[in-house]
Amino acid sequence: MSFNLDTILEVSLGIGLQLILLIVAYVLINPLGRRLITKIINNFTKKRNVSEARSLTLEKLLLNVFSYILGFIFITMLFGIFSLDIGPLLASAGVVGLAIGFGAQGLVSDVVTGFFILLEKQIDVGEYVSAAGFDGIVEEVGLRTTKLRSFDGTLNFIPNRQLEVVSNHSRGTMRALVDINISYQTNLDKALTVLQDVCQNFVTDDRFTDGPNVIGVHQIDNTSITLRVIGQTENMKQWAAEYDLRKAIKQAFDDNNIGSPFTQHVNFVKKETKLED
Amino acid sequence: MSFNLDTILEVSLGIGLQLILLIVAYVLINPLGRRLITKIINNFTKKRNVSEARSLTLEKLLLNVFSYILGFIFITMLFGIFSLDIGPLLASAGVVGLAIGFGAQGLVSDVVTGFFILLEKQIDVGEYVSAAGFDGIVEEVGLRTTKLRSFDGTLNFIPNRQLEVVSNHSRGTMRALVDINISYQTNLDKALTVLQDVCQNFVTDDRFTDGPNVIGVHQIDNTSITLRVIGQTENMKQWAAEYDLRKAIKQAFDDNNIGSPFTQHVNFVKKETKLED
Amino acid sequence: MSFNLDTILEVSLGIGLQLILLIVAYVLINPLGRRLITKIINNFTKKRNVSEARSLTLEKLLLNVFSYILGFIFITMLFGIFSLDIGPLLASAGVVGLAIGFGAQGLVSDVVTGFFILLEKQIDVGEYVSAAGFDGIVEEVGLRTTKLRSFDGTLNFIPNRQLEVVSNHSRGTMRALVDINISYQTNLDKALTVLQDVCQNFVTDDRFTDGPNVIGVHQIDNTSITLRVIGQTENMKQWAAEYDLRKAIKQAFDDNNIGSPFTQHVNFVKKETKLED
Amino acid sequence: MSFNLDTILEVSLGIGLQLILLIVAYVLINPLGRRLITKIINNFTKKRNVSEARSLTLEKLLLNVFSYILGFIFITMLFGIFSLDIGPLLASAGVVGLAIGFGAQGLVSDVVTGFFILLEKQIDVGEYVSAAGFDGIVEEVGLRTTKLRSFDGTLNFIPNRQLEVVSNHSRGTMRALVDINISYQTNLDKALTVLQDVCQNFVTDDRFTDGPNVIGVHQIDNTSITLRVIGQTENMKQWAAEYDLRKAIKQAFDDNNIGSPFTQHVNFVKKETKLED
Amino acid sequence: MSFNLDTILEVSLGIGLQLILLIVAYVLINPLGRRLITKIINNFTKKRNVSEARSLTLEKLLLNVFSYILGFIFITMLFGIFSLDIGPLLASAGVVGLAIGFGAQGLVSDVVTGFFILLEKQIDVGEYVSAAGFDGIVEEVGLRTTKLRSFDGTLNFIPNRQLEVVSNHSRGTMRALVDINISYQTNLDKALTVLQDVCQNFVTDDRFTDGPNVIGVHQIDNTSITLRVIGQTENMKQWAAEYDLRKAIKQAFDDNNIGSPFTQHVNFVKKETKLED
Amino acid sequence: MSFNLDTILEVSLGIGLQLILLIVAYVLINPLGRRLITKIINNFTKKRNVSEARSLTLEKLLLNVFSYILGFIFITMLFGIFSLDIGPLLASAGVVGLAIGFGAQGLVSDVVTGFFILLEKQIDVGEYVSAAGFDGIVEEVGLRTTKLRSFDGTLNFIPNRQLEVVSNHSRGTMRALVDINISYQTNLDKALTVLQDVCQNFVTDDRFTDGPNVIGVHQIDNTSITLRVIGQTENMKQWAAEYDLRKAIKQAFDDNNIGSPFTQHVNFVKKETKLED
Amino acid sequence: MSFNLDTILEVSLGIGLQLILLIVAYVLINPLGRRLITKIINNFTKKRNVSEARSLTLEKLLLNVFSYILGFIFITMLFGIFSLDIGPLLASAGVVGLAIGFGAQGLVSDVVTGFFILLEKQIDVGEYVSAAGFDGIVEEVGLRTTKLRSFDGTLNFIPNRQLEVVSNHSRGTMRALVDINISYQTNLDKALTVLQDVCQNFVTDDRFTDGPNVIGVHQIDNTSITLRVIGQTENMKQWAAEYDLRKAIKQAFDDNNIGSPFTQHVNFVKKETKLED
Repeated sequence: MSFNLDTILEVSLGIGLQLILLIVAYVLINPLGRRLITKIINNFTKKRNVSEARSLTLEKLLLNVFSYILGFIFITMLFGIFSLDIGPLLASAGVVGLAIGFGAQGLVSDVVTGFFILLEKQIDVGEYVSAAGFDGIVEEVGLRTTKLRSFDGTLNFIPNRQLEVVSNHSRGTMRALVDINISYQTNLDKALTVLQDVCQNFVTDDRFTDGPNVIGVHQIDNTSITLRVIGQTENMKQWAAEYDLRKAIKQAFDDNNIGSPFTQHVNFVKKETKLED
Repeated sequence: MSFNLDTILEVSLGIGLQLILLIVAYVLINPLGRRLITKIINNFTKKRNVSEARSLTLEKLLLNVFSYILGFIFITMLFGIFSLDIGPLLASAGVVGLAIGFGAQGLVSDVVTGFFILLEKQIDVGEYVSAAGFDGIVEEVGLRTTKLRSFDGTLNFIPNRQLEVVSNHSRGTMRALVDINISYQTNLDKALTVLQDVCQNFVTDDRFTDGPNVIGVHQIDNTSITLRVIGQTENMKQWAAEYDLRKAIKQAFDDNNIGSPFTQHVNFVKKETKLED
Repeated sequence: MSFNLDTILEVSLGIGLQLILLIVAYVLINPLGRRLITKIINNFTKKRNVSEARSLTLEKLLLNVFSYILGFIFITMLFGIFSLDIGPLLASAGVVGLAIGFGAQGLVSDVVTGFFILLEKQIDVGEYVSAAGFDGIVEEVGLRTTKLRSFDGTLNFIPNRQLEVVSNHSRGTMRALVDINISYQTNLDKALTVLQDVCQNFVTDDRFTDGPNVIGVHQIDNTSITLRVIGQTENMKQWAAEYDLRKAIKQAFDDNNIGSPFTQHVNFVKKETKLED
Repeated sequence: MSFNLDTILEVSLGIGLQLILLIVAYVLINPLGRRLITKIINNFTKKRNVSEARSLTLEKLLLNVFSYILGFIFITMLFGIFSLDIGPLLASAGVVGLAIGFGAQGLVSDVVTGFFILLEKQIDVGEYVSAAGFDGIVEEVGLRTTKLRSFDGTLNFIPNRQLEVVSNHSRGTMRALVDINISYQTNLDKALTVLQDVCQNFVTDDRFTDGPNVIGVHQIDNTSITLRVIGQTENMKQWAAEYDLRKAIKQAFDDNNIGSPFTQHVNFVKKETKLED
Repeated sequence: MSFNLDTILEVSLGIGLQLILLIVAYVLINPLGRRLITKIINNFTKKRNVSEARSLTLEKLLLNVFSYILGFIFITMLFGIFSLDIGPLLASAGVVGLAIGFGAQGLVSDVVTGFFILLEKQIDVGEYVSAAGFDGIVEEVGLRTTKLRSFDGTLNFIPNRQLEVVSNHSRGTMRALVDINISYQTNLDKALTVLQDVCQNFVTDDRFTDGPNVIGVHQIDNTSITLRVIGQTENMKQWAAEYDLRKAIKQAFDDNNIGSPFTQHVNFVKKETKLED
Repeated sequence: MSFNLDTILEVSLGIGLQLILLIVAYVLINPLGRRLITKIINNFTKKRNVSEARSLTLEKLLLNVFSYILGFIFITMLFGIFSLDIGPLLASAGVVGLAIGFGAQGLVSDVVTGFFILLEKQIDVGEYVSAAGFDGIVEEVGLRTTKLRSFDGTLNFIPNRQLEVVSNHSRGTMRALVDINISYQTNLDKALTVLQDVCQNFVTDDRFTDGPNVIGVHQIDNTSITLRVIGQTENMKQWAAEYDLRKAIKQAFDDNNIGSPFTQHVNFVKKETKLED
Repeated sequence: MSFNLDTILEVSLGIGLQLILLIVAYVLINPLGRRLITKIINNFTKKRNVSEARSLTLEKLLLNVFSYILGFIFITMLFGIFSLDIGPLLASAGVVGLAIGFGAQGLVSDVVTGFFILLEKQIDVGEYVSAAGFDGIVEEVGLRTTKLRSFDGTLNFIPNRQLEVVSNHSRGTMRALVDINISYQTNLDKALTVLQDVCQNFVTDDRFTDGPNVIGVHQIDNTSITLRVIGQTENMKQWAAEYDLRKAIKQAFDDNNIGSPFTQHVNFVKKETKLED
């Protein structure tokens, strides 16, 4: 293999020209294609009654896939410029598949997982999900990466293969659960009656689809008793419902003199001791 | 390899027409096939005494498999349109198998596991199971993904390979277990007798298939004693039974003056100290 | 590859007929084979003095293997119907082995492990074992999956490769161990004598194969002393023995005024302080 | 294979001369290329309104890639000097790909991940991100390694494949959250009113884009109650806002005599005891 | 491939006869071989002074290997009956090795590890070892599995590859270690002298090969001081020695009025408070 | 393959002589080469203003690489002596690469990582770094192993692939951070003023590059308040600065009567109880 | 393949004789070789000033390698007896390498790691090291396994690949560190002066190579202050030094009335309460 300076220069110039043309083409086609996709989706959404979340998901995904396809064509032509015949490469798909398998298993895994998340409609843009140890609102579902906005404002970029189990909190009514502790000495029947009355007041609350019910004596520890209340609320309204329910129960217990769950001790006091040495 | 603009345009148009036809066919066949499956399952369920859970599982699974087969045919024809001969690919099954093995091990693993979960009837739609760290009611068992509805309303999408051990809580009677603490100074015989009496009252309770029994002194820690009661209940009724049993025991202990399990301390008090410096 | 509608229809009809015949055969042979296996095992068990656990294990395993072999023949004939020659596939065992190795490592691993668990008689149906983080009674040992019934009634399906270390609690006498705490000030010789007397009473207990013995002062922490008693009991009777032993010791200590292990504190009380600011 | 001393010496001298020339060339080209890149980026930044963070990222990346390409050419020529024909090596790309795959999976994985982090603009120089268990300001995003400056001054070199999920804290407003505990006996309405007043004072604070709001009774534990306040602030100002809000709330509670959340106990004191033995 | 019923029946009969002969041979040879091995080992043990543990290990291992070799021959002949030529399989060892490698890595790994555990004499039957998170007495060391009897009576089947680090507690003298806490105010010189005296009494104890020695002040925490005593004992006698040493030290401290390590507090008491609201 | 005793002896003698010559050569060349490297580095360091850390790193690395190259030549000649032609082995680089890939992935991974750590100048000898869960001063950076001296004197040999993320604490100013607790009742304005005064005294301290600043009320827990002070110090002086700052703050708080952060309790005392049974 | 009984018997006899000869040869050569190695090492050690630890390491290693080579020859000849030509096996090194790679990766990994641990002199027999979660004195460094004697007498067999990071505690002076708590109210200047005096007394202690120094106020928690003292000691003497230093500091603090670090509480006592219900 000879490394002659002249040859290198000549080749470089030829390549340079082709490169510039290729890049110009890419720069022109890219924005046009993106605008086209956005328009089509908008028309499609208006005509049919497609939920906004789904149309957003679709639009972002199409833009995403468009970028990858454009990039693939761009790189293939780049190979052409550098005179590397890509034909046999595609033919020997098996071997290339192997190399990809070893070197970039993660990437293939991301795309395969991403494909099924979209096909099975596991998440839509705007839903509240937990996955890979992160909670938040979905901002974008891509073939390779999913973007999740945490409640503290952080934007998390999660490669799809990291998602594993996806817990979607926006698919149905949610449970509001309040546990409240009372004194060990409290009369259980009286306390449960007070709790029942509080729950009754919330039955008319629009947020509850299945009015809060007293479940009973959930736990008895050494110095206090835990009572549990459970109800079903509209999606994303479970927290506000819990906050209000918790406050109402506390005030009802105060009004009815239900004992507080302070820890209780028995203390054997000894004044004279033989401890000094 | 030449990248001539005209050729690309011509090819694109030809491909476009074929694509449209293919998509139209897909859009027509898909809903028809799904309705057919639903009907067949319904007839089948009425004639034979098939449990509803099993028939639901079967229906959802058939729809699932139907989608994948339809999709596979669709993609194969797509390859045909783009003139990529799929024959040799299938023939060289070994090499393709390798590529799949490396790049999408997870997917193959999901399907193999899903197949055996269905074959061995590990879970049915509507059962309460624990798997992959999630508890909940099964909503759908697919070849690739299982959907679990948590009790707080969250819908979990679990790839089948993540299931590993499946703990099915809907296959037989369940245990109701109540541990109750009493004071360290309590007379054990008296306390056990009171407990026995409470259990006796529950023997007639329909929920218990094997009436609650006093097991005995489960643990003695530094300032309290733990007694244990165990019974067998009908499936899914174990929690309500525990709640009622717990309340009844607490009230019986209050009525019989059984000492409370408050922590107990011995405190040597010293008034004069040489601590100041 | 041509996708002609007529050809597809003709082929479909031919295939349909063969399929129906095959399925009918399968539906007939399956129950017959299963009944045959059950009968043979029953005769075999009566003639020889085979333990019931082992005969149960054998029967369930044979049924299990029978299903897989029948299924394998069924699938092979299915391939025949669809004109896929299975001969070269079996001949090229190496390559197929590779594909299986990559795509379904877990399945092969399950069967290999299952085979050795059966060969080495690690578990029998009805035994109490711990494995893969689950405790329970074995309900079935299959080539791919082992079913474990937890004490709370849950049925766990454990793929065999997850078993790793199998801890079998039904192979010999079990240890009953009771640790009991006493006050830091207790006279050790007196306490040990009381403990010795309690143990003496249990020597005649049938459940103990090696009467409970006082081991001695197991631990001394800041305000209490732990004494330990150990005995050997018949299998599965260790818990009842521990419960009774624990109760007897506690009552003997009460009768002999052995000090309670309450936490002890020294408290330097200061009434006047310069803390206010 | 003969190991003759003379041959080795001759070959060594020839190689030596070529080596020196190669190294000299490398030493000259390297700084020139780097200066060129810096200039181009500076011009580019001035002409277009590119944010400084993005232009910094671009410059560092280009320098980075330049080093690798130069190094690749350098090594290829080095092979030429030692008469190892590199042609067949490139031709047998599949096999080489395999070897790389096994031996240096990590490196390939780093570059693939790095490429996508840059393509998807997940992080820019100067942003505050969390990844791989480290928090800090991004100092450089390379193809193989990302440098993160922790707040304690440490410089972390993170191989890109370790990044997995990237949590970017510099993409939008951030949440300021203050939890404050009060006494179990406090009148809840009064406490919430005081809190509301404090929040009102912060509405005019420029740092808050969505004024702090009282969320309500967040938690009730055995001896205290937790109230929660949440607001949205400008990026990176969330901490200062929380510090000020926390101080203001504490002072308002002091001024309004809201009870302190000290732990509360019930103490049954016994003077005479039968504990001595 | 033809599936003709007659052919299947004929073949089945021929195979059936051969199968019966093969099984009969297996049933005869197996017990004979096992008895032979036991006899040879017994003679061998009597003639030479081989430790019983080693001879047990050897016997169990030989029986184990004998089973596998017999099984291998049995299966090879089985293949012969079914007319599957096993020759080329053995010849193509490489490919088969690969298949085994992928599908049953665990099994190969077990045998390789087992082989080295035996070769390096890491464990003998009857020794007390810790491995794979389990403690216990070795019951059998096989090529694939090691059986460990826990102290609670459980029999653990551990695949050899799970053993990883083997900690053998039966290879030399063991350490007896006693930590004892005393009051923070104790005179250290006095306490250490008392401790020294106790240790002196144990020097003549046969169990100690290196008499217990006072190491000194091991730790000083907020309200107590920890002193440490260490000695070397004969193997498996370390626990009894520790129990006796612990009791003796406690009694000596009681006799010499060494202060107890109760937690100590300073308590600023305030009677009038402004807490009510 | 024949195993004839005479042939073995003859071959052994011939091999023996060659072996001795080879070993003698190795023993002579090794020290000479090492001395040469040291000299060259020393000259190089004196002429140019190279930091001592970098020159140390370079020297140790060159010695390291020299050993491996010498070792490689030595082993190649050893193969020659034993008549194993090494040519085809090198030619079949792909297959050998595979074998290395499987059998010694770790080694290749170590060298690749080590190469990039050196190329990217992540660590120099003498720097204080954290990696792989170990803290300490770098003693040597090799191609395969990095030596880290912990502060307790331990020398850690870390294979480079274990390093993963390298946290270098010697690249810039370090943060000094002091958190100090005060009583829940303290007047916050007064306490912050005292803290401000202490910080003012440290502004003139040379160690601080950015004088310590009061950040504010960091946390309010149930019975105390935490204030935070942060400053920037010269590298490796952060600890001494923190020690002095901490002492000064404590003394200032004592002088100004700032309340101590003792835990505070409310205690409801009951003298008569119905607890006895 | 024919399974004729006569052939098997004939072959068995021929093989038997050869086997006996081979085993006899092995039994004779093994001890001779081992004695030879021991002698050579002893002579070598006496002539040169080789540290005992290194000579022990060398001897044990050579014996180890000798066993493996002898075993390899033994097995090769065994193959010869059974007429399995081993030539093509060695020739097809690549494929065999693969099989080994898959099936016994661990073994190859052990040897490669072991080789580098010896080459880089990471550990010598007799040194105190931490690795793989075990602490102890090195008893033997083999190519596959390293033996570590824990301080409680346990002998740990660690496969070399499990070692990962080796922390060698016998390569230089060690740090003695004592943290001592004092009362929150203590005058810091006085306490530090007392500590300084104690340290002064230890400067003449031979064990300290860098006399213990007072570092300062290490931590201030809610009711106590922690002071830190650090010194450098000779290797393996750090523990005794710490024990003595700790005792001396405690006694000096007692003599100088430095306040004890008992936890301190503020207790608001309420006699009349409205708790009863």
